[in-house]
Amino acid sequence: TIGDELLIGQVLDTNFNWLAKQLAGLGINVVEKRTIRDTQEAIKLTLEETWKKTDLLIFTGGLGPTKDDVTKSAIADFFGVKLVRNQEVLEHVKAIFASINKPFLEVNAYQADLPANVIPLKNELGTAPGMLIQDGRFSLISMPGVPYEMEKIFEDNLHLINVNSDSNVFQRTILTSGIGESALMKIIEKKEKEIEDDRVNLSYLPSYGTARLRLTTYSGNKILNSRINEHVEDLIKLIGKFYVVDEDLSLEEYVYLSLKKNGFTLSVAESCTGGYLSSLITSIPGSSAVFRGGIVPYSNDIKINEVSVDESNVNDFGAVSQQVVEQLASGVREKFDSTYGIGISGIAGPGGGTKEKPVGTVWIAIAGKERVESKLFHFSKNRSVNIKRTAYAALNMLRIFADFS
Amino acid sequence: TIGDELLIGQVLDTNFNWLAKQLAGLGINVVEKRTIRDTQEAIKLTLEETWKKTDLLIFTGGLGPTKDDVTKSAIADFFGVKLVRNQEVLEHVKAIFASINKPFLEVNAYQADLPANVIPLKNELGTAPGMLIQDGRFSLISMPGVPYEMEKIFEDNLHLINVNSDSNVFQRTILTSGIGESALMKIIEKKEKEIEDDRVNLSYLPSYGTARLRLTTYSGNKILNSRINEHVEDLIKLIGKFYVVDEDLSLEEYVYLSLKKNGFTLSVAESCTGGYLSSLITSIPGSSAVFRGGIVPYSNDIKINEVSVDESNVNDFGAVSQQVVEQLASGVREKFDSTYGIGISGIAGPGGGTKEKPVGTVWIAIAGKERVESKLFHFSKNRSVNIKRTAYAALNMLRIFADFS
Repeated sequence: TIGDELLIGQVLDTNFNWLAKQLAGLGINVVEKRTIRDTQEAIKLTLEETWKKTDLLIFTGGLGPTKDDVTKSAIADFFGVKLVRNQEVLEHVKAIFASINKPFLEVNAYQADLPANVIPLKNELGTAPGMLIQDGRFSLISMPGVPYEMEKIFEDNLHLINVNSDSNVFQRTILTSGIGESALMKIIEKKEKEIEDDRVNLSYLPSYGTARLRLTTYSGNKILNSRINEHVEDLIKLIGKFYVVDEDLSLEEYVYLSLKKNGFTLSVAESCTGGYLSSLITSIPGSSAVFRGGIVPYSNDIKINEVSVDESNVNDFGAVSQQVVEQLASGVREKFDSTYGIGISGIAGPGGGTKEKPVGTVWIAIAGKERVESKLFHFSKNRSVNIKRTAYAALNMLRIFADFS
Repeated sequence: TIGDELLIGQVLDTNFNWLAKQLAGLGINVVEKRTIRDTQEAIKLTLEETWKKTDLLIFTGGLGPTKDDVTKSAIADFFGVKLVRNQEVLEHVKAIFASINKPFLEVNAYQADLPANVIPLKNELGTAPGMLIQDGRFSLISMPGVPYEMEKIFEDNLHLINVNSDSNVFQRTILTSGIGESALMKIIEKKEKEIEDDRVNLSYLPSYGTARLRLTTYSGNKILNSRINEHVEDLIKLIGKFYVVDEDLSLEEYVYLSLKKNGFTLSVAESCTGGYLSSLITSIPGSSAVFRGGIVPYSNDIKINEVSVDESNVNDFGAVSQQVVEQLASGVREKFDSTYGIGISGIAGPGGGTKEKPVGTVWIAIAGKERVESKLFHFSKNRSVNIKRTAYAALNMLRIFADFS
């Protein structure tokens, strides 16, 4: 991924993460990723160090219309070719400007100037084309850095990626939730030894309040693959109540699919998470089938007036209390007419902590038609961590509370 | 950053982004970033290729208690030293387990085994210590991959980072919003030439609906620095209504600070963004001073019953219409008693589009005490892009609508 904006931290690199998922799905083993400056020198040095050392090299970024984008000239220099104006690309760029009723500027024609050894990859959603260079079994793909343009180009041109993908990869993933890494490891300690003895790779992939266990073999041996399936069954038994699912799903995807399958709906009243939990759920396409809606009662009077929390509870026990979150959960469930309601109130930090309720103190409640359950958590001192861990803890509580079949 | 989970895309690398920001703030020029596998081979190869080629090399990840964490042994091998149990670190690990009332497992003692040439860096929030190796002006820092642990270790040990930072860097940043990259470039075309002639680096850093212009010089020349200040003034005039602020702030930070400075408050009724806008605002520490609350009326009946939208408007014009978003904005403003209200309704996709209202169609309204303004947008076909661009477009509309001083 190319760009000074990545190296100074002004932009978070999400392109690589997306590509990594796609490549893993195709059985392509990603061995290294670099983020480099958008200078001719840095791009050429990277080409020198990596070209033909792997089957596939992918660049993203550095293909925009602005003058600090130098990828094309660096590629042309490296391969000793000139930039040549491509008429087909030029027509496409003009058509794009026409379709959005914007004037075609002369500077935009530069998008059609490509290194002479390149096969252009059509960019349906933008003006900078992708580029493919092939030399025997080695491929270089260069795509613009705008995420949705890059994704579309990649998906549209998959058939051109002529790599010897490692089709022998066999992988199983187990999602766990509500247990720390050390405790999880202790539970499966003996099993882990057996798995190692089979020369199967076992990885722990922890994230906010969830962890994945991933078993991988590259052997292509069918007997070993069925051994992995046995190991997975054994692991699931050992992990017990912390086991969520044996598919490569996020916790929010699992909860969404389970609600949908059972015809259940959900609503959320979240204070300290400030909309993050609703946003997690609604990031999933089709979530409107299960998600009725949410409320972010950031101020106490909104908790009282909009979600039926008793003023006396706020006064007597504080906004971060069992009494208040239980009323938030039941209140939003009734008002929004859903199968389940989630109530959240806590101190995300960095301010607002007291001796009794330090930063990281969070109450979460789940309400169903007949009962309410609540739990107190102590997370960290970090606002962003607390928001994320709270949202995942709430999803995990719902998973355990709900009658999913 | 070390870890197979990053290379297969199961985890998004946010550690590097955080570190990049810190290093840029310290005037340290980051020249390259790599993500590598958590194997001895990959870690040692990276050490061979990079150690002593820059002043500072930072590793994160690969220091947990689990067996797939091999960073320590790779470092020990590379420097030709043994792992030695450090008593001070061991006591700290035991104290951490005691403080959370969890049993100390023998496997956790492994956290205290460090390469013999390492200075341990205390990890206040976890059991895996950071490590520092210094050799003349060259430093290697290795930290665990858990973000908040890594951040705390880095912040606590800044004084140990003995690098020749480039204190001559002079940088100004301009935040723009509501204008595309090509159009922005066209506006400042002549000025850009002048800036280039001064040998000042000008970068465009576009993100969802906003773009930063960054002017940088490494000369240390005071006259040139004051020329940059003049260029910034000229650019601000050229950019006009698309200019937001000449500080390195995000749009949400700018809006938060402006609301706070003026004693204004905000509430939000957001349908297709599903809580993302509320979540953006509440990610800012102290946002409770300006953010009254939000509602995510994902279902039409919730729009009608909870935010005073007329059922006839939903029936006659649809949920994605000027009439409905204006009532969402006014309704939430009144109900939540805030200076401004934002209403959002759109089709995020991938489903739900029609010929009249294709995926990417979004209406946004801003309500104040005396007037309401609304605007129709056509974004992309990508759900995640549409959610983000909508949230930033709403913040930009509020910026223009509000009486900020």
